[in-house]
Amino acid sequence: MNITLEQAEKMLVAAREKSTELGVKMNIAIVDAGANLVAFAKMDDAWLGSIDIAQKKAKTARYFDMPTGAIGELSQPGGALFNIEHSNGGLITFPGGLPIKDNDGTVIGAIGVSGSTVENDHAVAEFALTAI
Amino acid sequence: MNITLEQAEKMLVAAREKSTELGVKMNIAIVDAGANLVAFAKMDDAWLGSIDIAQKKAKTARYFDMPTGAIGELSQPGGALFNIEHSNGGLITFPGGLPIKDNDGTVIGAIGVSGSTVENDHAVAEFALTAI
Amino acid sequence: MNITLEQAEKMLVAAREKSTELGVKMNIAIVDAGANLVAFAKMDDAWLGSIDIAQKKAKTARYFDMPTGAIGELSQPGGALFNIEHSNGGLITFPGGLPIKDNDGTVIGAIGVSGSTVENDHAVAEFALTAI
Amino acid sequence: MNITLEQAEKMLVAAREKSTELGVKMNIAIVDAGANLVAFAKMDDAWLGSIDIAQKKAKTARYFDMPTGAIGELSQPGGALFNIEHSNGGLITFPGGLPIKDNDGTVIGAIGVSGSTVENDHAVAEFALTAI
Repeated sequence: MNITLEQAEKMLVAAREKSTELGVKMNIAIVDAGANLVAFAKMDDAWLGSIDIAQKKAKTARYFDMPTGAIGELSQPGGALFNIEHSNGGLITFPGGLPIKDNDGTVIGAIGVSGSTVENDHAVAEFALTAI
Repeated sequence: MNITLEQAEKMLVAAREKSTELGVKMNIAIVDAGANLVAFAKMDDAWLGSIDIAQKKAKTARYFDMPTGAIGELSQPGGALFNIEHSNGGLITFPGGLPIKDNDGTVIGAIGVSGSTVENDHAVAEFALTAI
Repeated sequence: MNITLEQAEKMLVAAREKSTELGVKMNIAIVDAGANLVAFAKMDDAWLGSIDIAQKKAKTARYFDMPTGAIGELSQPGGALFNIEHSNGGLITFPGGLPIKDNDGTVIGAIGVSGSTVENDHAVAEFALTAI
Repeated sequence: MNITLEQAEKMLVAAREKSTELGVKMNIAIVDAGANLVAFAKMDDAWLGSIDIAQKKAKTARYFDMPTGAIGELSQPGGALFNIEHSNGGLITFPGGLPIKDNDGTVIGAIGVSGSTVENDHAVAEFALTAI
């Protein structure tokens, strides 16, 4: 099963609502089960550098089916996955990327959010998951 | 002047209406005046390979402020711009990419469409321009 | 609003004056609001490796609208943005890159300087900002 | 021997004078004997896609110490150097790139110009050579 564009766009809407509530400007990317881009939105005046980071967070979350922040804990100096960021054309392993699951727990895609603190990025991604 | 997310999403909606009318599945990308991604949508079951092509068409159209197909006519073997596609990390120079202008004629971004014949890709891009 | 070539070249002149005063050889890059290169100068005998670093510093400063060194403080091991450098085709997050703002505080571009210590790189970038 | 920044900037000035005379907006790049960027200028409103092309033309001209257009004649389908553009991270082999020689005929760098027709690009590059 794959996330549909309709589902992805519901998530984009929710992500933007949450961003507006927090007073932040986000880039939001959603990839499918194959880690391919399905939908993307750059809020006006969001950081240019976050266009790529939002997409890399979404891909990273789907590549390993876990929150990006969980990978980041393992990729620190001395950690089991030190510098895993060098793989796959560049990973982003700090918070803001989350897998998207259907009701059976199957991963159908992932979302990546970038544009503020990692706490805000994560909060927006998490809120967007409630939209579907 | 830069295209807004609101304008970009109106164009995505129009592009999908036209695609549905034509019975095709498209990837649609919109970039701003700096050639940075603003909005993207992959219709369900659209070609995976067109995710990148749609984005490259949009960038190519903004890079040179002309329809991608116009560049493709000049980049043929023996043409003035043969193999220009090797620049800028890869250009796509067949139809489906168009600059987006405001009422004063200033280029504020570009759209790239990929997923069907180049005729259909171009028709969808052209229709989307009427949305703003 | 975008930085003009005239403004960018005034900044290049100022950056070189400051570099000469400090007795250092710099590479200086200036990008516009879209993070695209506008002007560049490599002082004679400046480090070859700094040609790319100066450009990446300028882009990084515009990508996040802050001094590159501020990002570097967050991208350390254990920091919130650890290994952010893997995004956007490579960031440089130590000092020497600064956003360029107009009188209204709008970011119109960024400057990146590389060729000496990060303190000198930063000092030259900062001095160049006074030229416009 | 290597081109100096002073020489490179004289060439930039000349290139822009010629561009203004022709009524065109150019990107102009100058590399040294090591094919490394020395100076660059993007005239206001010049094509964004030509930032990279101007640099690739300059590098291509120095890589083979001949005008880019001469390589383009050999890189056509069936030609001796068919698709040489795939090397060196991307070459540009249509006119607008020229080697820069000192009085002894030694190549000390190269210039690349992009932003108009290849005839204009070449004319501006050729005029710039007269400045040193």
